[in-house]
Amino acid sequence: MTEAFSLHPQLAADTVPVGDLPLVRVLLAKDANYPWLILVPRWPGLTEIIDLPDTEQTRLLGEVAAVSRALKAVTACDKLNVAAIGNVVAQLHVHVVARRRDDIAWPKPVWGAVPPVPYQPEARDALMTALRAALPFKS
Amino acid sequence: MTEAFSLHPQLAADTVPVGDLPLVRVLLAKDANYPWLILVPRWPGLTEIIDLPDTEQTRLLGEVAAVSRALKAVTACDKLNVAAIGNVVAQLHVHVVARRRDDIAWPKPVWGAVPPVPYQPEARDALMTALRAALPFKS
Repeated sequence: MTEAFSLHPQLAADTVPVGDLPLVRVLLAKDANYPWLILVPRWPGLTEIIDLPDTEQTRLLGEVAAVSRALKAVTACDKLNVAAIGNVVAQLHVHVVARRRDDIAWPKPVWGAVPPVPYQPEARDALMTALRAALPFKS
Repeated sequence: MTEAFSLHPQLAADTVPVGDLPLVRVLLAKDANYPWLILVPRWPGLTEIIDLPDTEQTRLLGEVAAVSRALKAVTACDKLNVAAIGNVVAQLHVHVVARRRDDIAWPKPVWGAVPPVPYQPEARDALMTALRAALPFKS
């Protein structure tokens, strides 16, 4: 493999890194409206889930599930929204969003619903700390 | 298991059945704006992907991937959108939508973007026939 993985600049601009699992980089969206994680497989040239070999698709699912369980436990959310869309940023990335029935966009999907709201640093750090305690990130 | 699977009435109203794979029922959304399939695991009481045991999550992923490959082959779409949202209808269902850069909502996600457009019966039947030829549905 001659091409190296690099995070799309738009994803880099819109998120802060939480940590790396064996396959994916976990990012937190800079949007305090909802706890919103984005998982990016660290392989170059991916657009669709089905671009990955079957074994790596299964690994991706396992990491999506682990992140889903952690996010649900940490936020006590009412619903998870899990999606691979990629119409704007083609680099394969999977959204895992913790939704509450009283969040600003409920029941609409989050994409394009309302403008992002910056985090208070303390709130963001508390969420990051809780997620890092709940997930086996590489150190 | 005492409770039987039954399809949520809203999903039943908004779709036509295409066929059953080992785990999921595949439905076609009644919206000619985009080829839009919805996969519903035929287990009662599911809301989240992580409500399924790990082995069944892997089976679900395999069926989502098979449907994704078939839909991409049949439609020659530019992008797949794959999502489990469920804010309105809680019964676990996975959307697999074939998107084109010239479709009416591009690049926005399809949910709530524009009102559904009824299919011409011939167009719908042609799509169903092509999908049934591409996927190993139970007879």
